[in-house]
Amino acid sequence: MSPNRQALLLSSSNCHGYSMLEFAKQEICSLLQSINVTNLIFIPYAQMDYDKYTAKMKEVIEPWGFKVTGLHTYPDPVDAIDSSNAIFIGGGNTFLLLKTLYDNNLVKLINTKVNSGNLVYIGSSAGTNVATKSIHTTNDMPIIFPPTFEAIGIVPFNINPHYIDVLESATHKGETRDQRIAEYMEMSHAKPVLGLREGSILHIEGNKLTLKGIAGAVLFKAHEKKIEYPVGSDVSFLIFS
Amino acid sequence: MSPNRQALLLSSSNCHGYSMLEFAKQEICSLLQSINVTNLIFIPYAQMDYDKYTAKMKEVIEPWGFKVTGLHTYPDPVDAIDSSNAIFIGGGNTFLLLKTLYDNNLVKLINTKVNSGNLVYIGSSAGTNVATKSIHTTNDMPIIFPPTFEAIGIVPFNINPHYIDVLESATHKGETRDQRIAEYMEMSHAKPVLGLREGSILHIEGNKLTLKGIAGAVLFKAHEKKIEYPVGSDVSFLIFS
Repeated sequence: MSPNRQALLLSSSNCHGYSMLEFAKQEICSLLQSINVTNLIFIPYAQMDYDKYTAKMKEVIEPWGFKVTGLHTYPDPVDAIDSSNAIFIGGGNTFLLLKTLYDNNLVKLINTKVNSGNLVYIGSSAGTNVATKSIHTTNDMPIIFPPTFEAIGIVPFNINPHYIDVLESATHKGETRDQRIAEYMEMSHAKPVLGLREGSILHIEGNKLTLKGIAGAVLFKAHEKKIEYPVGSDVSFLIFS
Repeated sequence: MSPNRQALLLSSSNCHGYSMLEFAKQEICSLLQSINVTNLIFIPYAQMDYDKYTAKMKEVIEPWGFKVTGLHTYPDPVDAIDSSNAIFIGGGNTFLLLKTLYDNNLVKLINTKVNSGNLVYIGSSAGTNVATKSIHTTNDMPIIFPPTFEAIGIVPFNINPHYIDVLESATHKGETRDQRIAEYMEMSHAKPVLGLREGSILHIEGNKLTLKGIAGAVLFKAHEKKIEYPVGSDVSFLIFS
């Protein structure tokens, strides 16, 4: 693991009271500036309309001073990632995203390039799910069958993005988010789960993990009570999950 | 397909204002009485504690006059299903349930016995999801990797149990149920999705499909507006999905 590796894992692109990605603007800009990114490759695989999705991201990020190019516009996605120094994987459906990353032989490549410090990774929502050990704790519907739930594995634990702990309605009997995560924690293969509230960012710098953004996170571990971690917390201990 | 096949697919076991399974008591009792069921086999695979889960179901259903036996208490689950005339598959986690059904070689067997009219199928929540074409529209977290999302296939379409169309909270940016189902409808393999509101039951009798219970359902089809179907609706046309 290179001490130079860098990643930002966002809970979501949208957060109540902010325009798209606004809560993460400062973190994204300072990270991309620090490595002199001129062209940020956007991976739109979590949604169906790649052009439309990329156009939306360009509209938000290009005014910040970085060119944004959709990965689907390159002749070969592997070559494109190979010669790039920064990617942004957007949200949508985690199953569709992971399957498409595997279909394009990008999972291992991204892992290797990020962990060796040669590729900055920014992910949001589904893009955050696929950065972790596995997608076992996505909130998304399994709309398509991926070859495995194992993911890019930049961190050895799981993340639940858009973390929230309320009932859908007072009379609804469906499970709460905490109940769903508790079901996962009963599995023998379960890893700790970091629930990122909307507005929360996990910043990865080498093996240093810090909570940034405007909202904190909640950590679930097997047989333990959940623990709140406010913005600014050092959660590097999770590297040894 | 035998004209004698019978199944009840419940949206959930719990429904606001009712005790467990109370909203479905009349349908369950008249179905089981009609085929003189003496022993109902309960399949507890969607949860981790089979004994505890089976005990809970016994407590509810045995006072109605039917013996309930957990499938896990038989020496061989295939033999047990083979010599039985009625099963109840309870809710919990759909991925765990489907994987365990495949692990025990029960998927094809249940399909064949039900469709030939030799096994009455009652399912609730996850037990309803696995009765359909596939589990693509479960609400559950993918806590364990099944060999496929294809399921028992008693009906050729999908069901979304616990259907509800409200935001988790006014400030939350996570997707609504309708948005999640819309993502599925964009897939080329998508089938129609019947959203069963809590309290809704799909009754299958041969190729006749009727909505029963105390709440209606909502039908989603690709490129069409969703349609509400109240209790009592004949939705047999879905057999040709």
